[in-house]
Amino acid sequence: MQKYQNFYEEYVPKIEYTMDQALLKLAAPTCLLEAMRYSVNAGGKRLRPIMTLAIYQAFGGEINEDIIQIACAVELIHTYSLIHDDLPAMDNDDFRRGKLTNHKKFGEAQAILAGDGLLTLAFSWIAESKIDDTSKIKLMTSLAHNAGPIGMVGGQVSDMLGNELNYSHEQLVAVHNLKTGALISYAALAGGILAQVSEDIEQELKMFGLNYGLAFQIEDDILDVNDSVDVEKNTYPHLLGMVGAQKELATIINQTQQSLTTIASMQSFDYELVAGLLSYFERKND
Amino acid sequence: MQKYQNFYEEYVPKIEYTMDQALLKLAAPTCLLEAMRYSVNAGGKRLRPIMTLAIYQAFGGEINEDIIQIACAVELIHTYSLIHDDLPAMDNDDFRRGKLTNHKKFGEAQAILAGDGLLTLAFSWIAESKIDDTSKIKLMTSLAHNAGPIGMVGGQVSDMLGNELNYSHEQLVAVHNLKTGALISYAALAGGILAQVSEDIEQELKMFGLNYGLAFQIEDDILDVNDSVDVEKNTYPHLLGMVGAQKELATIINQTQQSLTTIASMQSFDYELVAGLLSYFERKND
Repeated sequence: MQKYQNFYEEYVPKIEYTMDQALLKLAAPTCLLEAMRYSVNAGGKRLRPIMTLAIYQAFGGEINEDIIQIACAVELIHTYSLIHDDLPAMDNDDFRRGKLTNHKKFGEAQAILAGDGLLTLAFSWIAESKIDDTSKIKLMTSLAHNAGPIGMVGGQVSDMLGNELNYSHEQLVAVHNLKTGALISYAALAGGILAQVSEDIEQELKMFGLNYGLAFQIEDDILDVNDSVDVEKNTYPHLLGMVGAQKELATIINQTQQSLTTIASMQSFDYELVAGLLSYFERKND
Repeated sequence: MQKYQNFYEEYVPKIEYTMDQALLKLAAPTCLLEAMRYSVNAGGKRLRPIMTLAIYQAFGGEINEDIIQIACAVELIHTYSLIHDDLPAMDNDDFRRGKLTNHKKFGEAQAILAGDGLLTLAFSWIAESKIDDTSKIKLMTSLAHNAGPIGMVGGQVSDMLGNELNYSHEQLVAVHNLKTGALISYAALAGGILAQVSEDIEQELKMFGLNYGLAFQIEDDILDVNDSVDVEKNTYPHLLGMVGAQKELATIINQTQQSLTTIASMQSFDYELVAGLLSYFERKND
């Protein structure tokens, strides 16, 4: 836990510095650059790049600037998805993390294009990195797959449709696996790809990421209920009740721990560092 | 000219078939798939994939299904850019090619996500293809570069800013090079990358594509003037007058032909086939 905390405190500033420096180097129109930087620099937990880097280091990988920038590609995708999600036609949010949303600050047209720009740039950051060709292609294949129509974008559409439907437990898991799990699963896998682990371990990392994303979503649903009176439909508390949702969360967290145990049994692996990622759940459930 | 015409008539149906089959195979939510297919299947000249395939074949490359799907990645990018361009916050168009625009048909949220999905999918189509790793990475590096913040997306922002500015000739060329030229330049380069040409030829193909894009834009400006009374600012006729714009068009077309002559002097190359791409300009200037 302390090990992870130290890692987190060391690398979040490096992640943020690397992203902003890379953006500043772009010869893009000033106002586009400003809109992209605004959202990229708007804070957040940086969970996805931290996960990639922690897993990479847990397998003995040596983190350098190139690796950090690769790990940040998924954060660009996450950021673009928040910008587009906030648009009037989607969630119509005026504020995010206490700041005006991108379209409130820069106008809708600019916000749409800032999102498009970040999404495209994510692929540049991997394609133009210094790692070997095979790893690059694995990363880009997986990122495009997990972020696209059969990944995150598909999940967003299903989530939107959910406003008019009542999902079963199975359907809800499927939607969350796409909308939240796919990108986190990519982040976990990316750490393994960079460390050149075996295919078996890649599979286990994907599962770890998917379950982590699901836990993340259940936690979010539970906190929403704690914060307000309404229990929204297509959430775990609505579907399973609060006790059921908490039990489900515990089960899923247990599965992520099992994935890490399995991985540690297959290859030398800093279990403690990566298990620290689960502290996110422990803190809030205290 | 006849050679190109035959090529065009053979490959446009194959391009359209390949794209639709690949989309139909996606396990994406039905409504997302429908929105993506609607715009991909909405017609158009298919200039960009045709250019890639003609150049590839001109260098002796053998076209197969895999190559066609790779060539279509740029058409997905072109299609997503049209969907987002048409949105109310951007050009606010209700019709495109005689059909309702994507957001008029499916709603804004769905249209934004269909665009995001197509943009992401373009990288999948290259990443998951069967060609060698080096060519894949070259294609993805160049596509992300030319479609992103320092390519097409940057050009769209500059074009939008132009509504409030008067651009110089040089600035107008720079904006068009990004907004239109970048993607066509990629399409030309992609044919060369697939045929594994030398770096010198790659450079010449990029120039060919950029100039082709510029000619395309000047032609478009001229036709707009012929169709209506207004001469919009930040167009060639506004900047150079109609005669000046036509002279500029002729000069640029000449430069594209010179690129092809240079290429033919460097490597065995079916000049006639690729020169046929220029018939687009001849027809309309008759």
